[in-house]
Amino acid sequence: MDLHTQLPVVGMVGGGQLARMTHQAAIALGQSLRLLAASPADSAAVVAPAVRIGSHEDLEALRAFAKDCDVVTFDHEHVPNAHLETLAAEGAVVRPSAATLVYAQDKAAMRRRLGELGLPMPRWANVSTVADIERFGTPCVVKTATGGYDGKGVFMIDDAAQAAELVAAGVPLIAEERVRLRRELAVQVARSARGETAVYPVVETVQRDGICTEVIAPAPDLPSEVADAARAIAERVASALDVQGMLAVELFDTDDGPLINELAMRPHNSGHWTIEGARTSQFEQHLRAVLDYPLGETQPTAPITVMANVLGGEPGGSRLDERLQRLLAEDPGARVHLYGKDVRPGRKIGHVTVLGDDLAELRRRAGRAAAWLRDGNPEGLHK
Amino acid sequence: MDLHTQLPVVGMVGGGQLARMTHQAAIALGQSLRLLAASPADSAAVVAPAVRIGSHEDLEALRAFAKDCDVVTFDHEHVPNAHLETLAAEGAVVRPSAATLVYAQDKAAMRRRLGELGLPMPRWANVSTVADIERFGTPCVVKTATGGYDGKGVFMIDDAAQAAELVAAGVPLIAEERVRLRRELAVQVARSARGETAVYPVVETVQRDGICTEVIAPAPDLPSEVADAARAIAERVASALDVQGMLAVELFDTDDGPLINELAMRPHNSGHWTIEGARTSQFEQHLRAVLDYPLGETQPTAPITVMANVLGGEPGGSRLDERLQRLLAEDPGARVHLYGKDVRPGRKIGHVTVLGDDLAELRRRAGRAAAWLRDGNPEGLHK
Repeated sequence: MDLHTQLPVVGMVGGGQLARMTHQAAIALGQSLRLLAASPADSAAVVAPAVRIGSHEDLEALRAFAKDCDVVTFDHEHVPNAHLETLAAEGAVVRPSAATLVYAQDKAAMRRRLGELGLPMPRWANVSTVADIERFGTPCVVKTATGGYDGKGVFMIDDAAQAAELVAAGVPLIAEERVRLRRELAVQVARSARGETAVYPVVETVQRDGICTEVIAPAPDLPSEVADAARAIAERVASALDVQGMLAVELFDTDDGPLINELAMRPHNSGHWTIEGARTSQFEQHLRAVLDYPLGETQPTAPITVMANVLGGEPGGSRLDERLQRLLAEDPGARVHLYGKDVRPGRKIGHVTVLGDDLAELRRRAGRAAAWLRDGNPEGLHK
Repeated sequence: MDLHTQLPVVGMVGGGQLARMTHQAAIALGQSLRLLAASPADSAAVVAPAVRIGSHEDLEALRAFAKDCDVVTFDHEHVPNAHLETLAAEGAVVRPSAATLVYAQDKAAMRRRLGELGLPMPRWANVSTVADIERFGTPCVVKTATGGYDGKGVFMIDDAAQAAELVAAGVPLIAEERVRLRRELAVQVARSARGETAVYPVVETVQRDGICTEVIAPAPDLPSEVADAARAIAERVASALDVQGMLAVELFDTDDGPLINELAMRPHNSGHWTIEGARTSQFEQHLRAVLDYPLGETQPTAPITVMANVLGGEPGGSRLDERLQRLLAEDPGARVHLYGKDVRPGRKIGHVTVLGDDLAELRRRAGRAAAWLRDGNPEGLHK
């Protein structure tokens, strides 16, 4: 409890852009997010005052951090599960809990549990040899069960022999059928400690080279029975896994209905559109959920919202400041979010959101804004 | 220039809630607002990392602060004008400039200049004796020309003799006719250093005991010619006075059209509704204006937005945290902004915004939410 504000103190492990935008949302709730960040230059660490520098893998750093917080939550799922159990055993309030977070940390555990729940997902198996993969059947997808972020740790295997090196590395692996999909979908759902849930409209996510580049809310031309099924899946997962905070469920849209691809238990890139596009942003909602506050409304604020990620471009060229000014001049309705990060090629350094009712026009605006901020190529803005 | 983010550095003098919400807006633009705050417990100082503690009246503190900023701006108008001239002479970029800010600091200078511009305002005069006030005519309003904030420095005089003590204090005074008004209005307009302007819809402000308690956007049942006149006045003032940043023009709605009451050259309480109620908030717009960035769209995002200020209640009773949770449960669509300030009776500690299309219902919701957060009296929520 912060005696000055009379409000409980929330700490977030990790200092990336998710923590940055959570701090931004925390300000309205009278809060100031405390952070455990790897570096003082981290995206969130440069905008928040109460930053402890330390590794999320260091139990002592986690302990010292948790001591100052009424509730501890996360901007990523990389804190060792055993450390979270230790913190909770020592009295810390950790949301989501270690027992829940394991399903976002370990894909084999996630698949096993979703199977027990009878939830729809691609056929899968634990694999540890090339022969296992051959038995499973190719072409398939082989994934590292733990670790992996934004596509890393996912391998397209056409012939089991291709996985020889991966198998030799000795990391736990699972194989999944390569699903025939129409597109990828995602659903955000918040669940508070007391068990209240609030689910957002189903969105379409567009990936390029394993990185999400664009999110369209709501997913265009999605039959209502598919949307209902996807939302029901997300609520079921949140409740069955006792999620506390935001849950993002990434789905494949297939002829057999939506199949669960991945889970993330935190604010997620596929929910950035909610900052302007929904009555309550996923960042505020995450705070409300982990504080066990009542949840906010999730209705959209516009018929269509399109979010495009801004990736870092090649070094050189115009300054980001000049590109930003030019974009704001060309598109006064574009909502820009920059993460205060060093620009490195391919790194997510921001996103742009546009709202309206003309899907093609919104996609064009969001896409050219993101391309322009990346490359500073004037053709980006005018194509 | 921040070499890490490649973006210019904005510093704000003052650490109140306006700076707090400006920092919140700055985060999206890739910025982190630097602050010169009187105390580390100030509303903005508890949410931002780069805070210098010092007095806004201390030239050395201002100098040291300005040295780290590409542009210096303000969350209040109390910095001595001569200090601002000194900073600018020494190379600091100060927005708005000393020459402009004087019209928000000195009501006599403001009235004189508005008179030269032929802008509509109440009849007024400089007064320094009881006889001056008698000659001016009573009943009237006597104001201290410099200083004064939120109603302090404004005196209702029915008989000139009532002003004897005030006159004896020797502070510069002006007298103004007591205008017959229907209601009070306000207009927000942003003007960038390059001279671009962006004006917001005209709002109605409701005052109680000299403190703004409620803002309705747009002002209900305002004839379009009055709205156009009010917006034209605001744009004229911004341009003629070379305002750089946000300008709030407070107006009296009278039978003779809108008359200028007060000017503020910063984000203003009457513009808090823009956070959710307009495409670009006044806080982001202020940053864009002082950075000389292109300005954002000012269109409303909902048919009607109502903002109610939360004032501090009497000590004792339920905790703010409990009241907040109860409010969020009762009204999941209420947008709450708490300022992280110690609760003192009558002090602005936050505001609540609601959006929709039913004016009476929105006013009821905003009013009861604010009353509930102040008093924690359950009747507040249900009346």
